[in-house]
Amino acid sequence: MYILAKVAVVLLISLLVMVQGGLPGPQVIATQGAVWPRPQQQNISSENYFVLRPKKFTFAKLNGTETCGLLESAFTRYYEVLQQDAKMTRKKLKKIALGDGFLGYLDELKINLTGKCIDAEYPTLDMDESYKLWVTNERVELQAVTLWGILRGLETFSQLVHLDNQESFLRINSSTIKDFPRYKHRGLLIDSSRHFLTLEKILRTLDAMVYNKMNALHWHIVDDQSFPFVSVKFPELSQKGAYHPYTKVYSPEDVKYIIKYARVRGIRVLPEFDTPGHTASWGQSHPELLTPCEIFATYGPMDPSKDTTFTFLQEFFTEIRGVFKDNFIHLGGDEVDFSCWQQSDNITSFMKTHSIATYEALESYYIQKVMDLVEKLQYNSIVWQEVFSNGAKLPENTLVHVWKRVDWKDTLKNVTASGKQALFSACWYLDTLNSGGDWEDFYYCDPSEFDGTAQEEELILGGEACMWGEVVNDYNLISRVWPRASAVAEKLWSPYSDSYDLDEPRKRLEEHTCRMNRRGVEAEPPNGPGFCN
Amino acid sequence: MYILAKVAVVLLISLLVMVQGGLPGPQVIATQGAVWPRPQQQNISSENYFVLRPKKFTFAKLNGTETCGLLESAFTRYYEVLQQDAKMTRKKLKKIALGDGFLGYLDELKINLTGKCIDAEYPTLDMDESYKLWVTNERVELQAVTLWGILRGLETFSQLVHLDNQESFLRINSSTIKDFPRYKHRGLLIDSSRHFLTLEKILRTLDAMVYNKMNALHWHIVDDQSFPFVSVKFPELSQKGAYHPYTKVYSPEDVKYIIKYARVRGIRVLPEFDTPGHTASWGQSHPELLTPCEIFATYGPMDPSKDTTFTFLQEFFTEIRGVFKDNFIHLGGDEVDFSCWQQSDNITSFMKTHSIATYEALESYYIQKVMDLVEKLQYNSIVWQEVFSNGAKLPENTLVHVWKRVDWKDTLKNVTASGKQALFSACWYLDTLNSGGDWEDFYYCDPSEFDGTAQEEELILGGEACMWGEVVNDYNLISRVWPRASAVAEKLWSPYSDSYDLDEPRKRLEEHTCRMNRRGVEAEPPNGPGFCN
Repeated sequence: MYILAKVAVVLLISLLVMVQGGLPGPQVIATQGAVWPRPQQQNISSENYFVLRPKKFTFAKLNGTETCGLLESAFTRYYEVLQQDAKMTRKKLKKIALGDGFLGYLDELKINLTGKCIDAEYPTLDMDESYKLWVTNERVELQAVTLWGILRGLETFSQLVHLDNQESFLRINSSTIKDFPRYKHRGLLIDSSRHFLTLEKILRTLDAMVYNKMNALHWHIVDDQSFPFVSVKFPELSQKGAYHPYTKVYSPEDVKYIIKYARVRGIRVLPEFDTPGHTASWGQSHPELLTPCEIFATYGPMDPSKDTTFTFLQEFFTEIRGVFKDNFIHLGGDEVDFSCWQQSDNITSFMKTHSIATYEALESYYIQKVMDLVEKLQYNSIVWQEVFSNGAKLPENTLVHVWKRVDWKDTLKNVTASGKQALFSACWYLDTLNSGGDWEDFYYCDPSEFDGTAQEEELILGGEACMWGEVVNDYNLISRVWPRASAVAEKLWSPYSDSYDLDEPRKRLEEHTCRMNRRGVEAEPPNGPGFCN
Repeated sequence: MYILAKVAVVLLISLLVMVQGGLPGPQVIATQGAVWPRPQQQNISSENYFVLRPKKFTFAKLNGTETCGLLESAFTRYYEVLQQDAKMTRKKLKKIALGDGFLGYLDELKINLTGKCIDAEYPTLDMDESYKLWVTNERVELQAVTLWGILRGLETFSQLVHLDNQESFLRINSSTIKDFPRYKHRGLLIDSSRHFLTLEKILRTLDAMVYNKMNALHWHIVDDQSFPFVSVKFPELSQKGAYHPYTKVYSPEDVKYIIKYARVRGIRVLPEFDTPGHTASWGQSHPELLTPCEIFATYGPMDPSKDTTFTFLQEFFTEIRGVFKDNFIHLGGDEVDFSCWQQSDNITSFMKTHSIATYEALESYYIQKVMDLVEKLQYNSIVWQEVFSNGAKLPENTLVHVWKRVDWKDTLKNVTASGKQALFSACWYLDTLNSGGDWEDFYYCDPSEFDGTAQEEELILGGEACMWGEVVNDYNLISRVWPRASAVAEKLWSPYSDSYDLDEPRKRLEEHTCRMNRRGVEAEPPNGPGFCN
């Protein structure tokens, strides 16, 4: 036994030594036609397959299936994806023997939408994204109750299609898939205030989200540094608060375009107007909103002592309500700096009059008024965890966004034990960088791994990968986010796994990254040396 | 005194607290018309300036100055840069009052090349890159002994040109600059083996090097993972060893193009053919070159026991000599894994016959033969530090490349104390990432800060920023290298400074990054939130 163990150790060491010295070819061999994020249930044959003929291929609606522009545009997009994939084939199909597993040509996918197809529909937190997909001898069909389910199923179908080993045809293995997301809210935060992001990069980001079945763009649109959102009612906000009043702003048309682009892909757009802190750029045109600091002649957070602050916000959020149609809005509430409030005589006397004992309570006073105000506009709020910790009384549907890595399990416990619903980002900050392969760090972290009851766990509605913009601009946004955020996308969609063996997802992510590259997403390499076909 | 100190502390804390909460606008205000890397001597007025009229502007050769295609093409490039810069102007010049400091229009820069202008010339380690530049009332002239000096001076001149505050004209402040590099060898390593890099990205990299006055592209062209270099004599090396035999290779024409593109910009191209380790890809077509490992049926390093190994390398490097004309070649020699040699009876008996006692000595035996072989081809060698540490007898002009961060000061001391010349990269590995602003880590490190005599210090000929390719491909190469490598470029060009106050370079790098962006280099933000004009 001892000798065997010794031999094993020697073998292992030799192997490790050789790996350190580098191996020929890529380190990770990509899968072929594997789906990211992993479906809930899938039965995929590795032997039996169809050949998809891209020129002949069509999406065919089953009798009774309604159609609408939204569905038809999805067909067009995925038809294009297949044509693009077809360019990988390098040899003529007829020269190749198709072999025993060949089940036939696949020229049609039947679409079975059992519910309604309505063009005007917006995706929502509670949309049904489930679908079933059969690519078998008996049935080649995609079935879903909603348009959103069809969209997710089309993505899966397109991922099953892959180049065969002889590089001569598009192959799709015989598959049966039953799929639905683990969490409702699967988001990505982008920050267009620290650095301006162009429309083009935001659209590419939405494309990539689709390929990862993410469904919520958390648009941290303004912050201290700049105010690129053009308000129709208060144009001075961006005129004075943006990095540039014309070239570094999002016009109403830009915003409308982004929302529509996202909507037809089943992605919600949730703006964040973070207050009362992180508001310096508001003060460029509306200093009266902010608390004057006694020293340095600067301004602090929003001034909660003035009624006019809330009158302004009432008007502002009324405009926002007409622009961002989702039922949720992110109100921020993080990292409020109390030093200006502490210095202000005005604030001190206001607190005395209203019997507000602490600055945390003052912040709660402020944010509760804002939450009430947006609630009257039929918005549900999302707030950063400080709002909960400071003891604000949250409206019923408010989501608490847990972002601090320190003690995140305790925070999730506290939030859910108090009956509040939560979003999770604590270990999914894409700012944290290491030398590469760090998607694995994000993958190892799971929001359900806190000490909660089943009921408490159910209060976690999902989470978000967060790409803060301090050192991220148009040039590194895409390659820094992808495929790192793909790890988060899979944690949020696929069934929970407590496995620390990442061999399987590693190979699948290798393929998925090449797939994203092929589709125009400039994702960086996930797993060390390698290449894409 | 105590009270004063206390007030200062309170002020400082308040300031810090507010900074943490974020400030409006960019964190770092960019300089205007400051030069990166900082010239050795410069006297730039902030008051007195010329207005450069881009359409009228010409480079005029002083009487007696020779011309040649290389010089003329440089004029064309910088003329284009000025035209590009001119697009930033948004208002008509005539509407603006030019003010007291206006010295006149600058429509001409006199070029005074005192030496020869020869098109066929290659840049060398010992080229003279010094230049003098006057932009004053008395004299608007660029003077240099060599073409290379003129190239560096043109870059400086183009950086002095900047947009005035009213965004209405191109301004150049009255300046006198006397400049020359601190180190001769100012390089960047790129790795086209772990991931294939396209021609386009390599050319963009060369552009960026010019903007940073770097003069040596260290092209780590092949490694274990792939062999993209197409050898005319041994085409099977890339046919079998590249990631793809046609699409992921550098044809002779590609290589020629890169070398020429670099040459006319004053950049040397130094290929690295790393042996005896890191050679798995050679073994795809020539397994006989490698040592067979007893277990796992794999191959280890080059086999030093066979004469045929050296016959092959003789032929191979003879071809290389005809392609890469620089007098230096990088022979690698790092990270040799001895396990295969240890297992090989053949190697064991070879060592016995030749009285070679250790594997380090065996490696030395190997690499000395290779160094001798390339020396006969009129190449000087560069080798990684292991070759020195293992005790190989190095030819006189061999450069020892110090790369290990651990004990780098001791290594530099040992290398230079033994009279060998050194290149430095130990704290300039761009692989090391943190959340941003990490150019400062590279900037804080200086090769001269080891315990060496003046004579020993002089043996350091320069250094390189190293961008290994494990997780770097076409998509993130440029934004990951720039402006992080700019920090290294300045350490290598500008006079030594022991200051830890980076306020000045920080502002200058902010401008320089925007300048690179404007010129098509997708550099990432260096300093947190901000924007470029």
